Amino acid sequence: MKGSKELLSELLAPVAPGMERMRAILAAQVDERSAAVRDMTHHVARFQGKQLRGALVLLTGEATGNTTDEHAAVAAIVEMIHLATLVHDDILDGAEVRRRVACVNQRWDNQIAVLLGDFLYARAFALSTQLSSRLCSRLLAETTRTLCVGEIEQSTRRYDFEMSRADYESIAAAKTASLYAAACELGARYPGGNQELGARMAEAGRNLGLAFQIIDDCLDLTAREEELGKSVGTDVEDGKVTLPVLLTYQAADEGVRAAMRDVYTRPELLDRRAALLAVCDVGRGVAQAQARAQELVLSAQRSVTDLPPSEARRSLESVFAFVLSRSQ
Amino acid sequence: MKGSKELLSELLAPVAPGMERMRAILAAQVDERSAAVRDMTHHVARFQGKQLRGALVLLTGEATGNTTDEHAAVAAIVEMIHLATLVHDDILDGAEVRRRVACVNQRWDNQIAVLLGDFLYARAFALSTQLSSRLCSRLLAETTRTLCVGEIEQSTRRYDFEMSRADYESIAAAKTASLYAAACELGARYPGGNQELGARMAEAGRNLGLAFQIIDDCLDLTAREEELGKSVGTDVEDGKVTLPVLLTYQAADEGVRAAMRDVYTRPELLDRRAALLAVCDVGRGVAQAQARAQELVLSAQRSVTDLPPSEARRSLESVFAFVLSRSQ
Repeated sequence: MKGSKELLSELLAPVAPGMERMRAILAAQVDERSAAVRDMTHHVARFQGKQLRGALVLLTGEATGNTTDEHAAVAAIVEMIHLATLVHDDILDGAEVRRRVACVNQRWDNQIAVLLGDFLYARAFALSTQLSSRLCSRLLAETTRTLCVGEIEQSTRRYDFEMSRADYESIAAAKTASLYAAACELGARYPGGNQELGARMAEAGRNLGLAFQIIDDCLDLTAREEELGKSVGTDVEDGKVTLPVLLTYQAADEGVRAAMRDVYTRPELLDRRAALLAVCDVGRGVAQAQARAQELVLSAQRSVTDLPPSEARRSLESVFAFVLSRSQ
Repeated sequence: MKGSKELLSELLAPVAPGMERMRAILAAQVDERSAAVRDMTHHVARFQGKQLRGALVLLTGEATGNTTDEHAAVAAIVEMIHLATLVHDDILDGAEVRRRVACVNQRWDNQIAVLLGDFLYARAFALSTQLSSRLCSRLLAETTRTLCVGEIEQSTRRYDFEMSRADYESIAAAKTASLYAAACELGARYPGGNQELGARMAEAGRNLGLAFQIIDDCLDLTAREEELGKSVGTDVEDGKVTLPVLLTYQAADEGVRAAMRDVYTRPELLDRRAALLAVCDVGRGVAQAQARAQELVLSAQRSVTDLPPSEARRSLESVFAFVLSRSQ
């Protein structure tokens, strides 16, 4: 929704100049000499979206009084890694619409989507090796590994209705929250300083990222495609048992459970999400999942209340809350 | 062939202890805590093959008197990047057999192959950030970018019989030879030393890598699957106009040319390579391509003749020649 994008842009006012620099660095990085590559990176750059992860680098930097000349580059690197995961996710999810732009693997093919994602990862790492401190390279290489492990773990738990909430959160922490954690830690610590503060901000980022993923899962289950601006129902299509579904399943009787499993697995079912919503009432599961996301956002906010009062800290707290209200 | 693998192992005798250490590091790196990931990395580790790129790091290190305690780790990182490209190549090429082990995207699916390749890249970069010098991270991040650009450029030139030999070599230099160049440069320079010597060894590696790719292309066109130990004819299937095909095409009359183009593009042709070999005589094109590979190997050998005489230098020269004789 235009509304929520404008709201976020207002919240990010304290780091607006940093965001501008970050975008300029991103634009320069994807401007590869090869015309074939340039055509693709320019296309993919339109996926950018909210650039929340990059914003977190800048906001935590400001809020902790740790901002350096290199923070905008660190933010750009975090965004490039996120962009690479989106490009590779399109192969994973078979998503058909992402932010109303045809996604890479439809305009080109799987081959190109793989290579383009690899290119973006490599670009991100290459830029990180040019910074004055190695912390960014180290933290983001580890984070990328964690992201992949989380995605692989998730793929092995498809169609698994016996998963616990802890299993779900452990996977979401790895595949999504780890990059939020790294963004906040880098903001607070880069180029090397205060490890304790870095760990506290990482914790805030992790809780925020987990909340973000839970809200994402709720939207995929309940939002309308034209409002969300990307495909909905992809989790059900892909066999992912997300938190709202899991909580619904756990509270259901065996008849409903069997119907839910059937909807996930019956061959050639056209709209699995519609079928799922027809065989069970996800309302309570969604509400419980949203409550959990709210709890996580409160934890994230508590992690920053000790920081000295500043416009950036207030903005950080509002951005945390924003994640709960987003409709896209 | 077992024969050529044994021959290579003899040639690598001067760096046998380094190769052992490299393998131990590789084994430790792919031994991820996640059981799901470990199962996959152990499977993919069987692709390893000749480990020629890792060997080049060690051999150029020895031959230039530049060996450090970290060379085995650098070699392992180079091999992990190579392994990541192989895993992602399997998505690209639809190769059905690689070294007689079912390839990743058949045992699992495209999703997993993408993630596993990403995981290996991330592991490689993470390890490189632990080394005492940043040279390895810097050079290999740039090289990975170059690899991707080369692959993307190649994919845009599919079915392009109007390509010049220079176009072909420029793509092969990027997608294949760049990692050979980086391996040799790192061997001679890591952790930072002699840039001039590093550039000379990079040039040797680039020529060798180009020769390797040309021989690979000839084998894909002419070898038998059971001898090569991996799928053959994949280049023709994928629309890649390789050097032996290009040289054959350039020397052919228009009737044969039309038949060649038809074989590449006619829908639902079952064995395109057999059809191609039936409509034209690739013998001269293959011989010319092999001659070009020989020329490149001689250039590579000339780059090392100035190095002080040593067992490692002789081994390096023999490994260069080995590339021409390989049948797998």
